[in-house]
Amino acid sequence: MMITLGEIAKQLNAKLIGDETIGITGLNSLEQAQASQLSYASSLKYLDALASTQASAVILTQATAKECPTNALVVDNPYLAFAQVSWLFTPKHVLPQGIDSSAITNNAKLANNCAIGKAVQLGENCIIGANTVIGDNTIIGDNVTIGPNVSIMHECVIGSDVDISAGAVIGSDGFGNARDAEGRWHKIAHLGKVIIGDRVTIGANTTIDRGTLGNTEIHHGVRLDNLIHIAHNVVIGENTAIAASTGIAGSTTLGKRCMIGGMVGIVGHLNICDDVIVNATSTVDKNITKPGVYTGFTPLMTHKKWQNVGIWLTKLDKICKHLNIKLKHLKG
Amino acid sequence: MMITLGEIAKQLNAKLIGDETIGITGLNSLEQAQASQLSYASSLKYLDALASTQASAVILTQATAKECPTNALVVDNPYLAFAQVSWLFTPKHVLPQGIDSSAITNNAKLANNCAIGKAVQLGENCIIGANTVIGDNTIIGDNVTIGPNVSIMHECVIGSDVDISAGAVIGSDGFGNARDAEGRWHKIAHLGKVIIGDRVTIGANTTIDRGTLGNTEIHHGVRLDNLIHIAHNVVIGENTAIAASTGIAGSTTLGKRCMIGGMVGIVGHLNICDDVIVNATSTVDKNITKPGVYTGFTPLMTHKKWQNVGIWLTKLDKICKHLNIKLKHLKG
Amino acid sequence: MMITLGEIAKQLNAKLIGDETIGITGLNSLEQAQASQLSYASSLKYLDALASTQASAVILTQATAKECPTNALVVDNPYLAFAQVSWLFTPKHVLPQGIDSSAITNNAKLANNCAIGKAVQLGENCIIGANTVIGDNTIIGDNVTIGPNVSIMHECVIGSDVDISAGAVIGSDGFGNARDAEGRWHKIAHLGKVIIGDRVTIGANTTIDRGTLGNTEIHHGVRLDNLIHIAHNVVIGENTAIAASTGIAGSTTLGKRCMIGGMVGIVGHLNICDDVIVNATSTVDKNITKPGVYTGFTPLMTHKKWQNVGIWLTKLDKICKHLNIKLKHLKG
Repeated sequence: MMITLGEIAKQLNAKLIGDETIGITGLNSLEQAQASQLSYASSLKYLDALASTQASAVILTQATAKECPTNALVVDNPYLAFAQVSWLFTPKHVLPQGIDSSAITNNAKLANNCAIGKAVQLGENCIIGANTVIGDNTIIGDNVTIGPNVSIMHECVIGSDVDISAGAVIGSDGFGNARDAEGRWHKIAHLGKVIIGDRVTIGANTTIDRGTLGNTEIHHGVRLDNLIHIAHNVVIGENTAIAASTGIAGSTTLGKRCMIGGMVGIVGHLNICDDVIVNATSTVDKNITKPGVYTGFTPLMTHKKWQNVGIWLTKLDKICKHLNIKLKHLKG
Repeated sequence: MMITLGEIAKQLNAKLIGDETIGITGLNSLEQAQASQLSYASSLKYLDALASTQASAVILTQATAKECPTNALVVDNPYLAFAQVSWLFTPKHVLPQGIDSSAITNNAKLANNCAIGKAVQLGENCIIGANTVIGDNTIIGDNVTIGPNVSIMHECVIGSDVDISAGAVIGSDGFGNARDAEGRWHKIAHLGKVIIGDRVTIGANTTIDRGTLGNTEIHHGVRLDNLIHIAHNVVIGENTAIAASTGIAGSTTLGKRCMIGGMVGIVGHLNICDDVIVNATSTVDKNITKPGVYTGFTPLMTHKKWQNVGIWLTKLDKICKHLNIKLKHLKG
Repeated sequence: MMITLGEIAKQLNAKLIGDETIGITGLNSLEQAQASQLSYASSLKYLDALASTQASAVILTQATAKECPTNALVVDNPYLAFAQVSWLFTPKHVLPQGIDSSAITNNAKLANNCAIGKAVQLGENCIIGANTVIGDNTIIGDNVTIGPNVSIMHECVIGSDVDISAGAVIGSDGFGNARDAEGRWHKIAHLGKVIIGDRVTIGANTTIDRGTLGNTEIHHGVRLDNLIHIAHNVVIGENTAIAASTGIAGSTTLGKRCMIGGMVGIVGHLNICDDVIVNATSTVDKNITKPGVYTGFTPLMTHKKWQNVGIWLTKLDKICKHLNIKLKHLKG
């Protein structure tokens, strides 16, 4: 697929500074874009990345346009424009209908009513449960067992010796939306994939979203329990284990051999280093750069006690001020 | 459907004060009931609503019976009696079998093994994934894309340009149960619907329960991420976005343009005003009447530090007492 | 199935102390093992259970071997060896293909594309939704209603008058993994069942894992809302109700008539007594031995206030030290 920059400018109602005849073949981040790709810079904090980008064109605001080292599309809201242009590069994915004649299922045992899309490849000795759906172009390794009622969307890559429990969803669109001036959300097309390594297990009703640009990656030997949410562009390092009901927001990277307890919430765009243990129900809202055991939740109390404690908890800063305690008093 | 009040009294073993011959055609809350409908008042806090109800009859206790402006059914446990009577007004919903001949599917692309119930209507250009089930009388607008393995129950209403990801469940029964004197739970029939506006997106494995009486409502432009729970009778205002793994309990109303982070817990019967941002993993346990950004979780610490802090955290009220700090000392 | 102890020792590369000719017919815990069963002791804290075990053989370390009252298999990592041996006793469960001729479905109404496995038994008057899968040897009582897209795995036992909503998964493998010296995880076969009593309701997309050894048990009259995670070997007492998005980790036992709010996290291996109420979003990390109402979460604040409070919250131990407050000062 190739669209001229002039055509894109017209569709976005953008001011084009540069060569309208060049052909754009895809989208990428400022850092990863190659020649003939289009990127975007949504704010001034991307000026460094903008300066060194290899993209053939960048969507940006008037304020950043003068810093653009290549062709520029000037708009009011670059993220919204990116959401709109993302659909131009999204092929229409038809949902699979039965077992497509172009699918290679090898010696797989397929239970009833599986839907296997175009050009799907299954390795040796796979077992696929009833009513499971595998989208177009997805590639799956050897000895993979997939439970019933599983949905694997298009263009995912799954290694060997993987075990996927009932009801899991792999490759759903990420939660990426750009907001317009009227407060309406515009969904971003998700052009990335989900890439799953070897010896991974995925629990029942767990969901793994595909990447926006780039991929969501689950590395070799990872263990995911039930009802876990893995957002777009998350990367989970080798042999990390995550207990049930935990959620990891977009673009966060977890290291190797981490153990994340159940119902942990990890916010987006973080880096968690190798060998980190996070206890159940904690919130991770900043990078973790040192291996170790981390915790953060309110201890359980009788409700009466909690009510009494709560009154003072929300005034802790004022208590310290009243007592004239300074941070420098609290060494050691 | 119409049942005489005398027949209902007999089935509930209730004392009837008033006209046993009147016909009851349905159930509703004290506030919303119309003539020929039956309501209930489970405690003294409903006396005002009782005084002005338009219901033709009310289930209540001996203690409130003298305040009843209309026919009364007197029982020991009005909520339990309501649970029992709810089933009298619940038609038996047969689960769909293949594509019913009375369904209007228009030019929809239906993948394999969809089950489409009686009198279902699909608008123009819908795409329905494999193994997706749509219950009787559900009405769906134009350009709606529904992933595989989705379950949409009977009598839901879904707007146009809606996008529903794999594994989502819409219109499941709410979690309404009345307890009897022996501690046994009695399920309440859910007579309401789920009403979804235009341009809504719903993530993978998210669940939206139908209303008990009245409806669960998701207004235009709302964005719901994966693994979200929306309970019975929740109302979500236009263009509000909710991140993954969040849960909203019964009868809570969210305003417009709110942004709710991931794994937020919002308890029932609350009102959250427009333009509220709640950060990830917070608990919302009271009404929010002012737009702004809200947070409530314990910061992450090393486990050792958390253990040391926790000892004192649960004694914060006693620390303040020991230090003779009063709330009035903490102004400013 | 019977395997000689000598053959097991060979497969595990274990040192056998005792009789290599005895036949092992299954696995069990030290406490529950009977003659001809094999157990394991992963650390010194199991010495008491080891001393009184009825198992015919025990996997253990060199350090505990001398305390073993029966045949011993000596290895470096008994839990890892147990994970390996668990697969020797796991029959290959073939996923159901359509409605097996050996299934007894009685007068059940089966919607389209159900898959019902070998020797499944359904009681009178069951209703099974479209695309629902029931694994081999599962037994279900009378008047059970199961929604669409539900996955019930092999060898579960479900009582009468049970109601299971769309997308639920029952009998998936628990999250049991043993770690080897290189940090790789080895999945443990789950030989237990899920046993569900009468009059239980199970919400949409809720997951209930089967036991490792022994069973996961949901007793009569229990109510489970949507998106709940119940881990392996959890036991939930009669008439306990649990709201949506709550997770209960492995081997925890809840008493009767408990009410657990939404998004509560309960860690593993705990005992919660009868008549306990836990408010929404609390964390339960220790046994509860007294009925009552319990709470533990950070109250919601404006984000600015939360930032100010948080600075001091993580230093509460140092504040108390600075003020020279001792625990003994905080009586009453």
